[in-house]
Amino acid sequence: MAGNLPIDGRRLWDDLMRLAEITDPARPYTRRSFSPLFDKGRVWLRNRFADAGLDTSMDTAGNLIGRRAGSDPALGTILIGSHSDTVPSGGRFDGAGGVIAALEIVRSIAESGVALRHAIEVVDFLAEEPSEFGLSCIGSRGMAGVLDQKMLGYTDPSGEVLSHAIDRVGGNVSALASARRSDIAAFFELHIEQGLVLQEGRIDVGIVTAIVGITRVEVVFRGSADHAGTTPMHLRRDAFTPAAKTAMFVDRLARELVARRQGLFVATIGIVSVSPGASNVVPQESRIVIDARSENRVLMDEFLAALDAETAKFAEQSRTERAVFARLSDTNPTACDPVLRELLRDSANALGFSSTDIASGAGHDAAFVARIAPAAMLFIPCRDGKSHAPEEWAEPEALAAGTAVIADAVLRFDRKPAAPPA
Amino acid sequence: MAGNLPIDGRRLWDDLMRLAEITDPARPYTRRSFSPLFDKGRVWLRNRFADAGLDTSMDTAGNLIGRRAGSDPALGTILIGSHSDTVPSGGRFDGAGGVIAALEIVRSIAESGVALRHAIEVVDFLAEEPSEFGLSCIGSRGMAGVLDQKMLGYTDPSGEVLSHAIDRVGGNVSALASARRSDIAAFFELHIEQGLVLQEGRIDVGIVTAIVGITRVEVVFRGSADHAGTTPMHLRRDAFTPAAKTAMFVDRLARELVARRQGLFVATIGIVSVSPGASNVVPQESRIVIDARSENRVLMDEFLAALDAETAKFAEQSRTERAVFARLSDTNPTACDPVLRELLRDSANALGFSSTDIASGAGHDAAFVARIAPAAMLFIPCRDGKSHAPEEWAEPEALAAGTAVIADAVLRFDRKPAAPPA
Repeated sequence: MAGNLPIDGRRLWDDLMRLAEITDPARPYTRRSFSPLFDKGRVWLRNRFADAGLDTSMDTAGNLIGRRAGSDPALGTILIGSHSDTVPSGGRFDGAGGVIAALEIVRSIAESGVALRHAIEVVDFLAEEPSEFGLSCIGSRGMAGVLDQKMLGYTDPSGEVLSHAIDRVGGNVSALASARRSDIAAFFELHIEQGLVLQEGRIDVGIVTAIVGITRVEVVFRGSADHAGTTPMHLRRDAFTPAAKTAMFVDRLARELVARRQGLFVATIGIVSVSPGASNVVPQESRIVIDARSENRVLMDEFLAALDAETAKFAEQSRTERAVFARLSDTNPTACDPVLRELLRDSANALGFSSTDIASGAGHDAAFVARIAPAAMLFIPCRDGKSHAPEEWAEPEALAAGTAVIADAVLRFDRKPAAPPA
Repeated sequence: MAGNLPIDGRRLWDDLMRLAEITDPARPYTRRSFSPLFDKGRVWLRNRFADAGLDTSMDTAGNLIGRRAGSDPALGTILIGSHSDTVPSGGRFDGAGGVIAALEIVRSIAESGVALRHAIEVVDFLAEEPSEFGLSCIGSRGMAGVLDQKMLGYTDPSGEVLSHAIDRVGGNVSALASARRSDIAAFFELHIEQGLVLQEGRIDVGIVTAIVGITRVEVVFRGSADHAGTTPMHLRRDAFTPAAKTAMFVDRLARELVARRQGLFVATIGIVSVSPGASNVVPQESRIVIDARSENRVLMDEFLAALDAETAKFAEQSRTERAVFARLSDTNPTACDPVLRELLRDSANALGFSSTDIASGAGHDAAFVARIAPAAMLFIPCRDGKSHAPEEWAEPEALAAGTAVIADAVLRFDRKPAAPPA
């Protein structure tokens, strides 16, 4: 690992650990969006932004932004950041690592005496994790202009409407259109990998090729709630049998699609329920939710077509009805910007860090920013791939390395004779 | 169907429908054991027993008994009955049909002027259905002397202890040993089939060969709660995969065992749960409960051994741990008494009813009475095999036929030159 980085790794780490202390003490690390602790974290962040000499503000979508103007306003803005909210009992790195890295980059560049031509901004996107409103990436959706009226009407368990909650944390939904940006020349996001590829390959940084599209399909099989003792096997209409067959099929097909080496593909059945759920009653209904992800829409379409055909067949084989086959959600994969990826690779090489191309199996704010600007992501290794848990961990050196790579890429981007954004 | 029966089918039906009216009006037909409605039903039953000239009493296990003495006390007692409690939102026939049939038999025999040599008793067993105390067949267990101290200490959700509840409905747990009977020469129980065999075969009555043994096995698989997007298929330890494989295996093996024609065998997975139960998290743990039933212990033992071996293999294949493999309960099959079965067959033939041998896939009070006396059961058809539901239905003619067969068998038994009980 290189010794002389363009950033202060110690300051970066200390800031991240200090932000981590703003947590529900009963279940570290928890800083849920829209909660008082979330506001407390943002007060702390706003002060740190101000300490770094940034102009801090909140956009109408509730994104906290620290900005330093550039020497050539026509070139637009380099945006760097991630999110400070967490899942319940989450970790200290997912999201917050990318926000503090962005702060450190802007701070270090200023201290180095370099005056950027582009304006530069640090962003803490509002509510990247699925919030109590059942929606993720609220702030980045807002910045991309795709936070729609239906979403704004979602309510949390207490009955609060999302639009009200955004206003409550400092946004202004009545002027939401102004959150949509057209001045962003480049977006960089640092994030922990949340997987094992970098650790297993002993690679310093992962340059994200694409963020997967995610399709969730709900399947409900309906049979007959017969007596487990008096109903012979051949007269049953057991609703769990086709669900079990679907699980075997999904596992097998996902592995086949992976073996084609046409991009990341994973599929998971994480939700399974059976009713009435008594040991002495044949299942009348089973419900499963399949979460499939790919960076290649062709693979996804093939998977979905096969899933449709096979589940219909399994229902027929077990004399049950496939009562529901519904896409709960469906997003396309997002490719990262090739120019920015090239810059990140050059920077990693120049600083002496190993790098690899990697697809992101998780969703990120970058997927929404990519709708309005060139966007790139850099992954750093995290221990054993664990994330969304208190044991989530990245080494201080790994965090410093990734931050330094983006800092270097920002400088390269700023010097490039690039055309201003359209 | 024969026209001239030794019982009054109309009176039988009217009594049964009157008892059915004693239900929670919000969810017919509900008369849960230990509830005020249950007591109300028993007050009505006690009056009907008394109207029939029976001496009514409660034994110390809480069984309601109506008795008429015989001419030869040395011959012991012919016991007939079932239970008057129901599952929540149950039917009008399961249990109550057997109690009212017993009453009609005793009433009709008396009216016919026949004086029996044996004493004869009608019994309403306490709490045959799984009660709020998590135990079934409470009264018949007590009569068989197998209601033990551990069971008596079970509590219901309100915190009441079972021994107290038995006393509250008229039992006397401090003298429970006296509920154990040694004078029963024969026990007959009429019950709806709760299955489809009689209806599909258009057969009037089923003569039960055996009551299945029931073995319940809990299996828990434990894997790793990894991110559904960032964990490649080959690195997963998905705890649902071995559960799904187990379901396929159980279904296949059960059908194989049925095909051997060595007695009833059924297996059901009615309880399935997966945690953490989020669409974007690979299942960390799955839990299933397998309910297997057979009238042939050899089949059961083969099934259990294979289940053990295969679930261990499935766990290994999916790199998960089989954290639990436990028998939650395990009862042996109970053969019905061959002499009493022969009498029932003769009576059915004499009255012009078709009959068939049939195994009971459900548990019944008769399985406990069989521990202390010769016991037999007679099934009558029920519509579409539906039971434990408001639409549970037996035709008045079917109920009358079954009741008449038992009445005739009682007369045959009483005339037999049988040895008194040991």
